[in-house]
Amino acid sequence: MFYQTTIKTEREGFYELTEKVNDFVQKSGITEGICVIYTPHTTAAVTINENADATVQADLLLGLRKAFPFWQDFRHSEGNSPAHLKASAIGSSVTVIIHEGHLLLGTWQGIYLCEFDGPRERQCYVKIIAG
Amino acid sequence: MFYQTTIKTEREGFYELTEKVNDFVQKSGITEGICVIYTPHTTAAVTINENADATVQADLLLGLRKAFPFWQDFRHSEGNSPAHLKASAIGSSVTVIIHEGHLLLGTWQGIYLCEFDGPRERQCYVKIIAG
Amino acid sequence: MFYQTTIKTEREGFYELTEKVNDFVQKSGITEGICVIYTPHTTAAVTINENADATVQADLLLGLRKAFPFWQDFRHSEGNSPAHLKASAIGSSVTVIIHEGHLLLGTWQGIYLCEFDGPRERQCYVKIIAG
Repeated sequence: MFYQTTIKTEREGFYELTEKVNDFVQKSGITEGICVIYTPHTTAAVTINENADATVQADLLLGLRKAFPFWQDFRHSEGNSPAHLKASAIGSSVTVIIHEGHLLLGTWQGIYLCEFDGPRERQCYVKIIAG
Repeated sequence: MFYQTTIKTEREGFYELTEKVNDFVQKSGITEGICVIYTPHTTAAVTINENADATVQADLLLGLRKAFPFWQDFRHSEGNSPAHLKASAIGSSVTVIIHEGHLLLGTWQGIYLCEFDGPRERQCYVKIIAG
Repeated sequence: MFYQTTIKTEREGFYELTEKVNDFVQKSGITEGICVIYTPHTTAAVTINENADATVQADLLLGLRKAFPFWQDFRHSEGNSPAHLKASAIGSSVTVIIHEGHLLLGTWQGIYLCEFDGPRERQCYVKIIAG
């Protein structure tokens, strides 16, 4: 089963996808398998992290800006090389297990699109494999 | 096939899962497919890295502490934002190919749970998909 | 379906795999599913990033060298702990969705083997799961 969703983003930020992905899993009728959440962009990413305290998301953005700052010797003329770095460090997809009809997320885990170079209209693809 | 294992951790550290995951693959009887190893926590992660020299694991922890240190302007009140950052940079799961009845790991590759904010009791889920 | 390819690398660099992976997908005849691209090494990785402007790849290598430099207190005697760190931060595999007979990559996305400790002869495994 294959699904798709669109997210309008600000300059930087985390956008929760958990509920939409859960809906896709329910719609699919698949009760055992895996679910791949994928974003087809090179300055955005998908991650799993805390869903309770939104300051975690702010801290994640801050910590990534510190780890991957802009360097004067970057050569890419668009000036968004830090966003490309964050995209590869976080990754373009996550895989979650489906068990007994549900995404097997931990209590504090949510699935997020990470925008590192918005504002943009971003796509997310969701593929569910039974097994 | 779905399996689960529990790991008791120290404050920080790498905990090898390779043998347990191999056992699950044997138990499943699946000879061709993929194996997803997933941890449902937001301050722990799963990675694949060197299984021979334990100083690599110590260096990985050191290098991650340097890349993702504590910053005074973090806002999350629990004080463990570096652990959340490391969890998203490393990732909550790995996927390994199963071929001819075995996990297709390289000679020097082991599968590890990474604890960034212990001591805790951590879960790992293992899902095997035939195909 | 399981495929394998070998890449001869320089000291550091990005090696595009997109075309080879596309060929494997065509050869498999699988039109809906997922494709896992995996490297069995601990100082190399697989990532998805920009395929248009090669300066992005140079900037990614530079930004990773800055985020994960060599520290005097590293203990691993081979001296390549930064390469091990980059391998775990980027990851040993990527998963791409197959839809209507094609890898569902974005316009600007390419699949790359990342060499962090060459020159070497590196393997990549490609596993395609229908579903």
